[in-house]
Amino acid sequence: MHVLIIGAVALGPKAACRLKRLVPDARVTMIDQGFRISYGGCGIPYYVSGDVSSADELQVTSFHMLRDPKFFQDAKGVDVLSRTRAERIDRSAKIVQASDLNTGQALQLGYDKLVLATGSRPRRLDLPGEDLPGVFAVSNLEDAEGIRSRIEAGKVGKAVVIGAGFIGLEMAEALTDIWGVETTVVEIANQILPGFIGADLAQMARSHMQEKGVSFRLSAKVLGFAGEERVNRVLLEGEELEADLVIVSAGVIPNSELAMAAGLEVSSKGTIIVNTRMQTSDPDIYAGGNCVQVPNLVTGQPGYYPLGSLANRQGRVIGTNLAGGDAEFPGAVGGFAVRLFEISVAGAGLSLETAKHCGLDAIGVHVVQFDRAHFFPEKELMHLELVVEKTGRVLGVQGLCAGGDGLVGRVGAVAALLSRHPHVSEIGNLEYPYSPPFSSAMDIVNVAGNAAENILAGYSKTLTVSEFATLWEGSRHDFHVLDCRGLANAQPFLEKYPDVWHHIPQDELRARLDEVPRDKRLILFCNAGGRSYEAQITLEQAGITGTRNLQGGLAALRKYGMDI
Amino acid sequence: MHVLIIGAVALGPKAACRLKRLVPDARVTMIDQGFRISYGGCGIPYYVSGDVSSADELQVTSFHMLRDPKFFQDAKGVDVLSRTRAERIDRSAKIVQASDLNTGQALQLGYDKLVLATGSRPRRLDLPGEDLPGVFAVSNLEDAEGIRSRIEAGKVGKAVVIGAGFIGLEMAEALTDIWGVETTVVEIANQILPGFIGADLAQMARSHMQEKGVSFRLSAKVLGFAGEERVNRVLLEGEELEADLVIVSAGVIPNSELAMAAGLEVSSKGTIIVNTRMQTSDPDIYAGGNCVQVPNLVTGQPGYYPLGSLANRQGRVIGTNLAGGDAEFPGAVGGFAVRLFEISVAGAGLSLETAKHCGLDAIGVHVVQFDRAHFFPEKELMHLELVVEKTGRVLGVQGLCAGGDGLVGRVGAVAALLSRHPHVSEIGNLEYPYSPPFSSAMDIVNVAGNAAENILAGYSKTLTVSEFATLWEGSRHDFHVLDCRGLANAQPFLEKYPDVWHHIPQDELRARLDEVPRDKRLILFCNAGGRSYEAQITLEQAGITGTRNLQGGLAALRKYGMDI
Repeated sequence: MHVLIIGAVALGPKAACRLKRLVPDARVTMIDQGFRISYGGCGIPYYVSGDVSSADELQVTSFHMLRDPKFFQDAKGVDVLSRTRAERIDRSAKIVQASDLNTGQALQLGYDKLVLATGSRPRRLDLPGEDLPGVFAVSNLEDAEGIRSRIEAGKVGKAVVIGAGFIGLEMAEALTDIWGVETTVVEIANQILPGFIGADLAQMARSHMQEKGVSFRLSAKVLGFAGEERVNRVLLEGEELEADLVIVSAGVIPNSELAMAAGLEVSSKGTIIVNTRMQTSDPDIYAGGNCVQVPNLVTGQPGYYPLGSLANRQGRVIGTNLAGGDAEFPGAVGGFAVRLFEISVAGAGLSLETAKHCGLDAIGVHVVQFDRAHFFPEKELMHLELVVEKTGRVLGVQGLCAGGDGLVGRVGAVAALLSRHPHVSEIGNLEYPYSPPFSSAMDIVNVAGNAAENILAGYSKTLTVSEFATLWEGSRHDFHVLDCRGLANAQPFLEKYPDVWHHIPQDELRARLDEVPRDKRLILFCNAGGRSYEAQITLEQAGITGTRNLQGGLAALRKYGMDI
Repeated sequence: MHVLIIGAVALGPKAACRLKRLVPDARVTMIDQGFRISYGGCGIPYYVSGDVSSADELQVTSFHMLRDPKFFQDAKGVDVLSRTRAERIDRSAKIVQASDLNTGQALQLGYDKLVLATGSRPRRLDLPGEDLPGVFAVSNLEDAEGIRSRIEAGKVGKAVVIGAGFIGLEMAEALTDIWGVETTVVEIANQILPGFIGADLAQMARSHMQEKGVSFRLSAKVLGFAGEERVNRVLLEGEELEADLVIVSAGVIPNSELAMAAGLEVSSKGTIIVNTRMQTSDPDIYAGGNCVQVPNLVTGQPGYYPLGSLANRQGRVIGTNLAGGDAEFPGAVGGFAVRLFEISVAGAGLSLETAKHCGLDAIGVHVVQFDRAHFFPEKELMHLELVVEKTGRVLGVQGLCAGGDGLVGRVGAVAALLSRHPHVSEIGNLEYPYSPPFSSAMDIVNVAGNAAENILAGYSKTLTVSEFATLWEGSRHDFHVLDCRGLANAQPFLEKYPDVWHHIPQDELRARLDEVPRDKRLILFCNAGGRSYEAQITLEQAGITGTRNLQGGLAALRKYGMDI
C-alpha cells in the first residue's frame, strides 16, 4: 500500500507516523511546498517575542531532534519531498501531479490512499499596498523569521497589527512586551476576539493590554498601506497610523482548491467536507486539519476550527483508518486559550453573541471569585462567563484571569461536557478537584452554574458591567446605587457621588429597610455580586422590586477599566 | 415552616442560606456543639503552617466578615445556637432534645424539617497513651489552635504524624516546611495516599517529600504512645520514635449515632443512607456531608467522600429541596488534589489497586510529558496515570506535577466525564484548550488516552517503573536494556553498566537491527517512553518480540527516586 500525504506541517506527519506504527510495511510519502516541515506553527508568536530563541526550536522533537526529511526517513520510515507542490489530483488514475519547486521538474506520484493536509493560508485583505515590503502575514516560519530579523536589526519602532484574533493579539504582545515596539491593533469588529468571547470580557482583556502599552482601533476599517520602498503608513478611515512593520492576521482561508478541482465535496465556505472517519466524498481520499470542516458539537452545525491541536488528533484518526482501523473524530466544541501579558483568556463552546447569532435564546452569566480558597494567601480574581440557553442547557464558557493554568483547567472541565449538552445544574455540581491551594469548596465553576440557575429561575435579576457603564455614562438622574458593602468600602463613593450613591450594609438591611430609597430604580452593588444578590432577595421580600444586581460588582467594574 | 439543622460547619450553613434565599420567610435554626461555626476545615493545615495567619481567617467570608452567630442572624436571617449538642431525635413528635454545653440546660427544639449535618470525627486508634497531652487529632479549629500554639512556643522539635492520607501529608508539610520540625509520617499501608493513587505515583510523591526532609515509616503499625506528663515517644513494632507532638490522622468516622438511634437507615459502615434528593429514610429528615454515603459514579456502589466541597454542593441541594424544589446530588467520582511542598498530586475515580479490589480487570498507563508546549521556555514534566478497564472504559486518572494548577485542570477535565463511563478514545480526543503557554497540541491527557488504547490493542507492551526497579535490584543477568536515545545521553549508562546496557538510537535502529542482542529479554529505554515505543514496533517487525518498553522512561525513574 502506498499512502501519499499532501502537506507536512501538523496533520500530515501525525497521520504518517501513526500509520507507520500500525502498519510498519506501509509505504508513506509526504510532500510539502515549504522547506521547513513538521513545525509548531502555534509557537510563532513566541519565536517572534524571543521566548523561543530560534526557529529550529519549533521544529524539534521534545528530545531535540530536528524534524526534517532525514528524521522522518530514519526515525519514522516516511519519505518526505519538501519544496514540492501538488498541482492536480487525478482520482481515476490515482495519481497526483506535482512540481519540484527547486528544479521546476514535474512529478507524477501514484497513491492507493491520499491524505489532504493542505492547511490554510492567511486571508488577504486585497487592499492597495498589501504587497509592500514590511507587510507580513503570519503563515509560516519563513515569514516569522523575516519579522524577527527586522525587529532584531532595530528597524521597527512602530508596528500595526491588523486583526484582534488570537494570533494578532499574541503578536501584539510579542512586539510590545519584549521589543518595546509601539504597537497598534486595528480590528474591524467593535471588540477584540470577536466571536470567541463576550463584549464585557473583551473589554476587560483589552483594558489590560492597554495598560501594558498596546493601542487599539476598534470598529476600524483598513483602506490600504502606503510607503515608498517599504510600508510606512496604514491608512484607516479618517486616520493614518505610522508603521515600520505591519502584520496582517485577519483570519485564514482553507486551502481546498486542489480538492475542489478534483471534484471532491467542498462547502460554500471553502472547507473540505469529511465524515467522522475524516474521509472526503472519495473514500480513498482523507482530509483533515485547517482545510476541513468538522461538526460543531454544541450547535450540530458545521464548524471550522483551524487549530494545531485538533489537526494532530484528526491526523491520528486518519492514520488509524488508513491502517484498516475504525477511528472517529466526532467534532469539536471550540476550546481555546490565549495568554495576553499577565492575564489569560480561555473559552469553549458559544459566546453569547454567537449563540444569539445561531438563533438560540441565551443569556450570559458573569461571576467573579478567587481562583483558590479565599483564605489562601496567594490568589487572583477569576472572571467566568457561562452562556446558557433559557432551557437551562449550557452552551459555552469563557473566562479571564491572571496566570492562566487554573482558568484553562475550569474551561477544560466544562469543555469536556459541552458536547453532551449539560444542564446548568451539572455545572453547579461539577467535581473540580478541591484543595485550598488550587480551588474553592464552592468553586467558581460551580458558582457560575448556580448563578445561572438562579437567574433562569427568576430569583436573581442582574445587570451586566457594560449595561452599568452605559447607565453611568448617561444622566444618572433615573437610578440610585445601593452599596451593600461595609462603610469603609463605600465611603469614597458616597463622598464622590452623593446624589446617586447610597449605602446600607447587607447585614443591616433587614433592620434598615425604611432607609431604602424607593423613588427611582435601584442598582445593587458590592465587591463581587454576592452580597448584593442577598440584598435583592431581602428587598423583594419587603416589596421593593425591580432592582438590578451588578454582576461581578466592583471587581468586574475595575477589570472593565471603569475608574469610578 | 421551621427547619432545624444539626451541625453548622459546611453543609449546615449552606443549606440554611440557600433555603433562606429561596424562602425568606422560612424560620431556620442551626445548632452546633462547637464554639466556632462555619469555618473552612480544609484550611487547617495552612493555618498550622502559618500560610493562613489566624484561625479567624478560616471563619471569615471573602469580604472579611466573621461568620459567627451574629453574622448568620443579621446577614442571613438564620438563628444559631452554638455550644449546643443534639442528644436525641423524637421523630413522631418532631422534636430534637438538646443540651446547652455552657449551662448544662436541656432544650427541646421542634421542627417541621430536620437536616443532619453532623459531619465526622477523627478515627481513634484505641491505643495505650492516645489521650496523653501532645497527641492531637485534626478535627476542628480548636485542636489546630492547640497544635499551632505549641509549635509557636518553640516546644516542638520532633513530630510524628500517624496516617499518610491527605491531612496527614499536609500536616507533615506544614510542620517541616515552615517550622523546621523533624517530622516522621507513619502509615500502616505500604504506600502513601493508599486507595487514592497507584504505588508508582505514591513512591514518586514520597521521594519528593523525603527530599524536603520528611521521614516515612511505611507498612508500620503503631502500638502506642508513651511519656510522662506529655507524649514523648511513639511505639512501633521494633522501633520507638521520639516525638514532642503527635498528630493522628487515620481517617474519619461518620457521626451517625443520632440518626441510628432515631431509627433512620444507616449502612454497616456507619454512613447515613440518603436518596439523590439527600433525604434519609424519613422524608422529613435530610442529611449530607461527612455523615452520609452517596453513589460512587464510577462503580455504581455506595461511596464515602468526606470533602468540604461536596458538603457545600449537597447543602445547596438540601436547601433547594427544603424550599419545595427538586434538586439532586447524583453522586461523586472522588476528585481530589493535594499540594506537597513543590509538587502536587491530584486524581479522580479509581486507582489501579482500587479498581482491582472492585473486581475490575484494569490496567494503569503511566505517561510523562511537559505540562505545556515542549518549545515553551518554562515548563515542567507532568506524570499522568490513566486507569482503564480492558474493555476500554476509563475508570480513573491520577497525576503528579510541579506547581499544580495545570495538573488539577487535566484531572478536572477527565473527572467531568468519568461518571459517563468514557472510552479511552474520548480521552484521546478530549478538547483541553490549547495554547503553547498552557498545554500541548497533543496534550498529555490525549497522549494518556492514546497510550492506553495502544496497550489495550496490543500494539504497545510496557513495563512499569516499579517492575523495572524490581528487575534492576535483582541479578541483572537475564535482561538487556536497549537505550534508544542519542549517544550523549546513553554514554554514562554504557560506562556504568557495560554488561546490561546497550545503545542504538531509535532513528538508527532500522539500519542496525543486526546489532540488537537477542539472547535475553530486552527492556527498551528512552527519556519518556516515546522513542522506545517506536523502537518496539521496529523490533517486532524484524521478528524480535517479547520486548518491554519502560513507561515514562528515565523521567519516571528519576522521579521515582531511582539513582541509576
